[in-house]
Amino acid sequence: MTDAETLLIEQARQNLDPKAVITDPKEIEPWVTDWRGRVHGAAPAMLAPASTDEVAHIVRLAAEHRVALVPQGGNTGMAAGATPPADGSALLLSMRRMNRIRSISSDNRLAVAEAGVVLANLHDAAHEIGMRFPLTLGARGSCTIGGLTSTNAGGTQVLRFGTMRSLVAGVEAVLPDGSVHNGLSGLKKDNRGYSIDQLLIGAEGTLGVVTAVALRLVPAIAARAVAWCGVENPERALSLLRYLEARTNSVEGFELVPQDSLDLVLRHVPNTRAPLTARHEWHVLIEATTTDPEADISAELERLLGAALQEEIIGDAVLAANEGQAEAFWKLRDSISEAERVEGQTLAHDISVPVSDMPAFIVEAAAKVESAFPGVVASGFGHLGDGNIHFHVRAASHAAPDWYSEEGANITRMVDDLVTAAGGSISAEHGIGQLKRDELARLAPPGRINALRAIKQALDPLGIMNPGKLVP
Amino acid sequence: MTDAETLLIEQARQNLDPKAVITDPKEIEPWVTDWRGRVHGAAPAMLAPASTDEVAHIVRLAAEHRVALVPQGGNTGMAAGATPPADGSALLLSMRRMNRIRSISSDNRLAVAEAGVVLANLHDAAHEIGMRFPLTLGARGSCTIGGLTSTNAGGTQVLRFGTMRSLVAGVEAVLPDGSVHNGLSGLKKDNRGYSIDQLLIGAEGTLGVVTAVALRLVPAIAARAVAWCGVENPERALSLLRYLEARTNSVEGFELVPQDSLDLVLRHVPNTRAPLTARHEWHVLIEATTTDPEADISAELERLLGAALQEEIIGDAVLAANEGQAEAFWKLRDSISEAERVEGQTLAHDISVPVSDMPAFIVEAAAKVESAFPGVVASGFGHLGDGNIHFHVRAASHAAPDWYSEEGANITRMVDDLVTAAGGSISAEHGIGQLKRDELARLAPPGRINALRAIKQALDPLGIMNPGKLVP
Repeated sequence: MTDAETLLIEQARQNLDPKAVITDPKEIEPWVTDWRGRVHGAAPAMLAPASTDEVAHIVRLAAEHRVALVPQGGNTGMAAGATPPADGSALLLSMRRMNRIRSISSDNRLAVAEAGVVLANLHDAAHEIGMRFPLTLGARGSCTIGGLTSTNAGGTQVLRFGTMRSLVAGVEAVLPDGSVHNGLSGLKKDNRGYSIDQLLIGAEGTLGVVTAVALRLVPAIAARAVAWCGVENPERALSLLRYLEARTNSVEGFELVPQDSLDLVLRHVPNTRAPLTARHEWHVLIEATTTDPEADISAELERLLGAALQEEIIGDAVLAANEGQAEAFWKLRDSISEAERVEGQTLAHDISVPVSDMPAFIVEAAAKVESAFPGVVASGFGHLGDGNIHFHVRAASHAAPDWYSEEGANITRMVDDLVTAAGGSISAEHGIGQLKRDELARLAPPGRINALRAIKQALDPLGIMNPGKLVP
Repeated sequence: MTDAETLLIEQARQNLDPKAVITDPKEIEPWVTDWRGRVHGAAPAMLAPASTDEVAHIVRLAAEHRVALVPQGGNTGMAAGATPPADGSALLLSMRRMNRIRSISSDNRLAVAEAGVVLANLHDAAHEIGMRFPLTLGARGSCTIGGLTSTNAGGTQVLRFGTMRSLVAGVEAVLPDGSVHNGLSGLKKDNRGYSIDQLLIGAEGTLGVVTAVALRLVPAIAARAVAWCGVENPERALSLLRYLEARTNSVEGFELVPQDSLDLVLRHVPNTRAPLTARHEWHVLIEATTTDPEADISAELERLLGAALQEEIIGDAVLAANEGQAEAFWKLRDSISEAERVEGQTLAHDISVPVSDMPAFIVEAAAKVESAFPGVVASGFGHLGDGNIHFHVRAASHAAPDWYSEEGANITRMVDDLVTAAGGSISAEHGIGQLKRDELARLAPPGRINALRAIKQALDPLGIMNPGKLVP
């Protein structure tokens, strides 16, 4: 522990609730390694404020003593953006004690949730008043509103409702100078200069600490229909999406699954079975919803898929007969990463290209990678309708234990080059964190890197907010 | 003209198309006074590039010679944000020659329009492919995509589709260092660091020059229904909005009009008549639309308003019987400012407060202003559903010619204080420009002012981009 850290912790103990200052290594230990277990950090203390005032106090102490802070929510990030440096040169700032939903209203269609509110708890609170917060993802039982905002998280319902950026109506944050930015009034129109809210969304805690967020709610779902379709190739999958979009507004989930991924799930995940009897090279999981209790959403989706079958856009389709079957279909999609882990080493790339280019990209990029690195299996699955797929590359069965860091690094560079050449993004929804910072530095235009650095330097001149993250 | 300006113009002449360098005062003169005729500037030259490359060249020259540029689109802004300083210390940068729609696609639901494309032309282009760009406002025949983006413009359809911020899928801009920021790929998900796009939206040309914008399109309207309702007070108007929102997604225009404003229009604007026979203290203009050619939107709106009448939320309602009548209803709303100008001196305030607080705010703020400044008439009209009204204060009939700048300035300060106390915005949709900079400096928290200044200094350290605008 540095002298500055010791001094800061001492002063924090004097001024804050005892619960807000944690130095017991056993309590800190679960939070210094990232979610995927790849990056191991260290922190001499974990500060856990319970109010915006306490956060502001901590940030002012950090500025005074030039001690860096690493804000952290549920620690479910995929880019190690909330993992402290290994040398103990920063303190963890856990936001999990700020877990109040300050207000929630169906009239205003807004909730104000503190940064530490777990997503699933917000879902429940919205449900209780007949509303819905429509963003969801696998980590919903752990991830927090502050982390979701700071990473501009996506998930499976982006097609209809957008990422966090579309759902955030305002942000409260402590800026690196210790001042409180209050954007929570939920104004629908406000043109008083640069949007600090928008700058904080996706800033991964490098420009300040998000303490609370005003979030848009939508009416609760009255019913959903879930279908599984077999298609010949990703091009047909996109045609199906266009076909549906031209005829209904009710599609909110549209996930592409290759047969290879389905095979892995069926092999490694208990209690799974293929929805369709015949094999198809590709599959699409569709979720359609309605807020109208009188609408028959299943009948609508069945009719549309029947027509798509007639027009030979799809090869086959089955509608989930009940909620249990709907859950079973989703489980197939949600278990792909888990099945891959059982199968062996897998490289994950979270990428996007323009939606209309995605079908060709998936096929061509996979062929190029498999040809350049014999033995590997490359495939893309996920949010086709957002132009965002998880492009995963599995090691050959005979791969060495260091395949991930050796050949893997070369594969990642190749994938990132292909994505960049296609005008796409090397981080569609997971952010940059520590893990993608070098690739961002390698591939972003110099003008963009200059702009990112200038903004960081302008708002955090002392470099106390999550240093070493996001900015190349 | 300064030596630096002379040198810049000389070099621009050598390197650019002759049409891009205008020094004839007669050609410049129409563009140096703001839309409302309140602020008079001067510019020794107007640069009119036709490509992003030409813009980048001009910005690099400006940086080299330390000459300021004032970007301008249709010159229809309400805050004099595109009016050059009166001392001729800056050059106009007219974007009107960059007027190409680079691409437009119903499949991708995207258009890429250059900064100088006039809004009405984009409307037409979208219409031709069966789509729609859903933002519109009174100046649509003159205002440009670059200006709309740089001011995060609103308008009458924000209720359903949001402001420009919601409709911009990507921005191309020349940053103050002359580098080109290209955000046009239209990626739906992209988390590669701070959003430069979002920073440029609403920056009023102070952080760079927007050169082209990717814009979201929505399906074209199959039919619309327009209704005029009489209500007792703004509270009832909001109840009507909530009533409709709970039952339909089709409402996209919801405009509040006080009887006083309607009276002025009927008195001063030819060929206008009141839609309802009885007098009501307040009125609401409603527009509902559908994209479904088989839906009967008029019948739906009629049924809902019938039910609202039964429940005594509204006092009376009439549906436009045809497009001519629909246009006539909208003309009443759109002519309020014109009628006020005929009546006498009027102060306009473009303000917002949280939607649910707006009814009380309108009534109470008007009473306070009328009591503090005897003889004036204060009233709020406009976008109630966005929490954004135009709060106008009319001079007493005996007011002196300098009322606007004398008592007017005191009234504006009072209105801005009331708005700020209510957690609202002193600029809901018109921006800050030059006209509201002092009030922003007076009312924004110091932390926010520091952040705005730091961002400006970081990205435009030479101060060449629209100096004297927006940043206090």
